[in-house]
Amino acid sequence: MDNRPIGVFDSGVGGLTVVKELLQHGPNEQIIYFGDTARVPYGSKSKETVTKYAKQIIRFLLTKDVKGLIVACNTISSNSLGELQHTFNIPIMGVVEPGAFMAADATHNQRVGVIGTEATIASQAYQKLIQKQNHQVEIFGQACPLFVPLVEEGWLTDSVTYQIVQKYLASLQEAKIDTLVLGCTHYPLLASVIQEIMGDQVTLINPALETVERFLRELQKIKGLRENKTPPKHEFYVSDNPRKFCEIGTRILSYPMNSVTQVNIETY
Amino acid sequence: MDNRPIGVFDSGVGGLTVVKELLQHGPNEQIIYFGDTARVPYGSKSKETVTKYAKQIIRFLLTKDVKGLIVACNTISSNSLGELQHTFNIPIMGVVEPGAFMAADATHNQRVGVIGTEATIASQAYQKLIQKQNHQVEIFGQACPLFVPLVEEGWLTDSVTYQIVQKYLASLQEAKIDTLVLGCTHYPLLASVIQEIMGDQVTLINPALETVERFLRELQKIKGLRENKTPPKHEFYVSDNPRKFCEIGTRILSYPMNSVTQVNIETY
Repeated sequence: MDNRPIGVFDSGVGGLTVVKELLQHGPNEQIIYFGDTARVPYGSKSKETVTKYAKQIIRFLLTKDVKGLIVACNTISSNSLGELQHTFNIPIMGVVEPGAFMAADATHNQRVGVIGTEATIASQAYQKLIQKQNHQVEIFGQACPLFVPLVEEGWLTDSVTYQIVQKYLASLQEAKIDTLVLGCTHYPLLASVIQEIMGDQVTLINPALETVERFLRELQKIKGLRENKTPPKHEFYVSDNPRKFCEIGTRILSYPMNSVTQVNIETY
Repeated sequence: MDNRPIGVFDSGVGGLTVVKELLQHGPNEQIIYFGDTARVPYGSKSKETVTKYAKQIIRFLLTKDVKGLIVACNTISSNSLGELQHTFNIPIMGVVEPGAFMAADATHNQRVGVIGTEATIASQAYQKLIQKQNHQVEIFGQACPLFVPLVEEGWLTDSVTYQIVQKYLASLQEAKIDTLVLGCTHYPLLASVIQEIMGDQVTLINPALETVERFLRELQKIKGLRENKTPPKHEFYVSDNPRKFCEIGTRILSYPMNSVTQVNIETY
């Protein structure tokens, strides 16, 4: 057994959709979350900048004695995971490989769509990993830069949201995909609109679920699960004023975030 | 005379709308521009974070021996200008005071709207400065968080853009304003849609123009204009990979940006 906490991090508030799965599937685990709200979004930034920021975050989380890390951010997972795993001597799992595995498994007509930030789509990380699982699959990528601000604005089911989703997904409809990866942690909050526009015959993949299940299985294999019987006390850290994070975060988690602390991440 | 360059800075590419006015009205001046593209946007960040970032940028620009600074960002001008002027011993002008002056001057019915980022509107900086000019004016503020990503996506005249502009500006139409301040440097790129929705009877105020004219008048007063007859060589610096900045920037300036250099701004 290993009673130390699990570190989860993201460019901002979106990674809480991964925390939500972790609370449900590993309710005895303690979570230390970091959201880089002072430098969000990462999706339009270069690979070098994203990697530098991720390293600072990991150095911070290591001061909290975490036993392993989940990169709850598709942009970091797509662009920096290999370098992070090479740099730090601790188990680090991204959301992209589990998401790619699910998608390769789910498709019947071998036509899979991937939506995400500009950086995630440009990296072609999903494409490479899905085709590694099943080289017959054809992948159709589409960056959707307006989805994150729409979610942060709280316009989850507005008529303009429908139109913007329609506009971005038109090419994927034409491509006749049967599986669509929600390749950004904010996107599950738009799932109902996306499902309605794509139709019931298209399977939506939320990589957070498979990531969390796989991470917990790995911990179990090495007898690394927490066995302390006292309920875990989670901690949330951000790089900007916590106010807005608490507001959107409480909506995502349906969990009152009492303890959110601001950290000067640039010094790590 | 003072042949040193003028420093202009913004959270990203938007401040180039100020550079555009400076190129036109002070064509003999040399410009050093900094855009904080690694940490953009500032509009959803706290006052403390915005002020810290602005100080790092000014320390960088001071290494370039600038004679004065234009804060080409409404969020920084609204939240941090006083502290920056107090901290640094160099003339610093923001865009908010000149914009407020223009608006107070332009209104006939004493009803003025201000649109900007969440941070700019929350600061009430325009409200205070417009009412200082003319305390009879009533101000109606509206944050428009989706305008910046719409501009960066290049959707300047799409039908969803019309609908989003309509949605944000409905309350200002009801308020029967006759003057509207474009309180974010990205917004002049949406001016034609905004004008169409608000109608011809509403005067749009672009603070960049008045800011540049006022800055050049101040320089002239202290005999601080550049008199070197060789054409000025402008320099552009950013904190992330310059590729996207060059692409959007060339569109804004209609000026080929050959020399854009990446700077590690966190070390300043």
